Amino acid sequence: MEEIAVAKFGGTSVKSIARIQHVAEIVKNMPERKRVIVVSAMGDTTDHLLALAKQCSATPDRRELDVLMSTGEQVSIALLSLTLRSMGIRAKSFTGAQIGLLTDDSHTSARILEIDRLTLEAALVHSDVVIVAGFQGVNTAGDITTLGRGGSDTTAVALAVACQAPVCQIYTDVDGICSADPKTVPEARELQQLTYVEALELARNGAQVIHSRAVELAEQYGVAIRVRNTFNPSNPGTLVDGEETMEKYDSLSGVAIDRSQACVSLRTAEVSLALDKLTDLIETGQISADVIAQSAIAAEDGTGATLSLVLKYDDQEFLARAVSELEGACGAFDVAVDLDVAKLSLVGRGLSGRPRYLAKFLSCLSAAGIEAKHISCSDLRISCIVRKIDADRVCQHLHSCFALGRTRPLLQSLAATA
Amino acid sequence: MEEIAVAKFGGTSVKSIARIQHVAEIVKNMPERKRVIVVSAMGDTTDHLLALAKQCSATPDRRELDVLMSTGEQVSIALLSLTLRSMGIRAKSFTGAQIGLLTDDSHTSARILEIDRLTLEAALVHSDVVIVAGFQGVNTAGDITTLGRGGSDTTAVALAVACQAPVCQIYTDVDGICSADPKTVPEARELQQLTYVEALELARNGAQVIHSRAVELAEQYGVAIRVRNTFNPSNPGTLVDGEETMEKYDSLSGVAIDRSQACVSLRTAEVSLALDKLTDLIETGQISADVIAQSAIAAEDGTGATLSLVLKYDDQEFLARAVSELEGACGAFDVAVDLDVAKLSLVGRGLSGRPRYLAKFLSCLSAAGIEAKHISCSDLRISCIVRKIDADRVCQHLHSCFALGRTRPLLQSLAATA
Repeated sequence: MEEIAVAKFGGTSVKSIARIQHVAEIVKNMPERKRVIVVSAMGDTTDHLLALAKQCSATPDRRELDVLMSTGEQVSIALLSLTLRSMGIRAKSFTGAQIGLLTDDSHTSARILEIDRLTLEAALVHSDVVIVAGFQGVNTAGDITTLGRGGSDTTAVALAVACQAPVCQIYTDVDGICSADPKTVPEARELQQLTYVEALELARNGAQVIHSRAVELAEQYGVAIRVRNTFNPSNPGTLVDGEETMEKYDSLSGVAIDRSQACVSLRTAEVSLALDKLTDLIETGQISADVIAQSAIAAEDGTGATLSLVLKYDDQEFLARAVSELEGACGAFDVAVDLDVAKLSLVGRGLSGRPRYLAKFLSCLSAAGIEAKHISCSDLRISCIVRKIDADRVCQHLHSCFALGRTRPLLQSLAATA
Repeated sequence: MEEIAVAKFGGTSVKSIARIQHVAEIVKNMPERKRVIVVSAMGDTTDHLLALAKQCSATPDRRELDVLMSTGEQVSIALLSLTLRSMGIRAKSFTGAQIGLLTDDSHTSARILEIDRLTLEAALVHSDVVIVAGFQGVNTAGDITTLGRGGSDTTAVALAVACQAPVCQIYTDVDGICSADPKTVPEARELQQLTYVEALELARNGAQVIHSRAVELAEQYGVAIRVRNTFNPSNPGTLVDGEETMEKYDSLSGVAIDRSQACVSLRTAEVSLALDKLTDLIETGQISADVIAQSAIAAEDGTGATLSLVLKYDDQEFLARAVSELEGACGAFDVAVDLDVAKLSLVGRGLSGRPRYLAKFLSCLSAAGIEAKHISCSDLRISCIVRKIDADRVCQHLHSCFALGRTRPLLQSLAATA
């Protein structure tokens, strides 16, 4: 079967007509004759639409939010298709519903159930470039759904699976996945290759280049992802796949900052009720169990125990409601929610087998005079919670201590002694 | 069967969130329990999207234009639904495709084939307010189509037909259909009732309150239209229906200005070829045969004849292409296109049976020192072509001569002597 190119261009890549024309040039120059192109909404359209919705309703209905939000990508597909067609290329745009991207009913955070291969194949017969609106789908009732933040990445990987493309290209506004966000750490190193697990760990812990759901889907179906720069298309970027090469073995990937964290503490006489309720809340979405530090300590006066949690959240209002439900469910008191925190994560492989990494991590923080809380470790990551204002500085400091930059003398010496 | 309210709110009525909230109040206060509400795109969204498309392509593909343009109404339905739901009203939004508004394949000027009554009925069972995106539909291939300018009015009438509502309410930004545009003629009189033919004649000749296609559809299915003001909802506005009352008999409706007119003149040796080609061009749309003045006069030197046409157009670029095709088809020379013209129409009933109206019309123009060309008459209308810069003044003058304002002494005396 003829190889099909699948590529996704993010919001900054299609922010203006000039940028859409630039994207059209990249698409035109792809070597594959048949191309499936996924686009996000232009620039900050999604935020703008969300702000309009909030003006209409304090708690916007999710079905209607999806009707609203999905227009952003629909504008992008039409404009890219118009541009490509004006260049003489046989392009055709498809909304999520039109390409048969079927999802479940979870409005604003729907999961993809299937893509109609027949529709996609027919589209590729009649057009050379099939342009698909990212982030959106349709449920069995015909309602428009959206996949949640980062959904366009997931759309692109799902399309790569559906048309059996070996690679899904994710075009963004940086050169690839780096050892830290270059805006925070100018000397951050671009990573040429990462395994799915490393990319996942970075994505889940705040690296914003690629969405974790897309990496999960890619891993599940064995599709490689190449993250590359729309504004530097000759750069090969970062390849994420299942290969474990010598180069990657026993190496650190980078440092990530996640600013959507909340430290919640409360006192309750009903710790097990509180934990049950917490489990419920995690199951219903938007707060994540990814990193939860719990400490249930009986109070000295015997009036109950103190629970201390670190929650990841997508939406502050949802978090506030969740905490208030948690409070009600277990009769909690002294409830405090601290949003002024960030999670720093050092991501790599084989960390738990090499205690020197943790020791080094701790001494780094200490030397910088940083008060870090809730330190947690796994084989793939060492994380801690710091004050939000310290996040950039801690990131720079860890990046430098572990020598993750373009030259890596200290890392090599560490690895040698680990 | 329970009576269902059907109402359409235009772009100025949903221009901002504050206005959408105002529309929601009107919808909330409608006496009918079940309501079908059609909305246009917010403010000048459609023009803005069209401008984006033109930046992408000099001759935008029409299928893709429809994908783009239809997003405007999709934003409006979601925001109105969010607002109504936040007021505790069971509202649900539907795109044209979702409500089963099936059209033909003529992208950007599609005709409605049918509305899926079962879908509409099911929607009305599950919701009290069914909000439908105006201006858009879907063809049998599943492609998004749009109905052309004024399409939202047509959508509303079609929905009124589908749910057997006796009246379709068109909410706009003026108090109803007036004897002239109040922006041009401040003393213009609001017309309480008009027959379909009078409303059609006004709409076709430049009155912009309601679209002629909507009136045609309403007449065909016997649905009355009530034009009323979103910003003065207690005013009953103008009722357009098939009733011929004493009050309306033998009366003048008003004066309309149409600024989308072009005077085209050319010389050709092949007059019949030119007329054949013109017929073709009219059939393929966007220039209209509504008023064509032709004069084929053999040139003195025997080199051919002069054709002089008045064409109504929707789109200047289309007009330019059409004229150039006409030129090519008949080997025309000395081709001139004059866009600096406007058509003034005095609309009423029984005009051809009362020659005094035409005499009065001509003496009015003459007294004002206006050079009028291409005067044409029918039982419903007397029209002439004037320079664009004179249009407002001629309109005011005719309005005053025929005493169409709030007090009508001269009209009554004219009618008595006619």
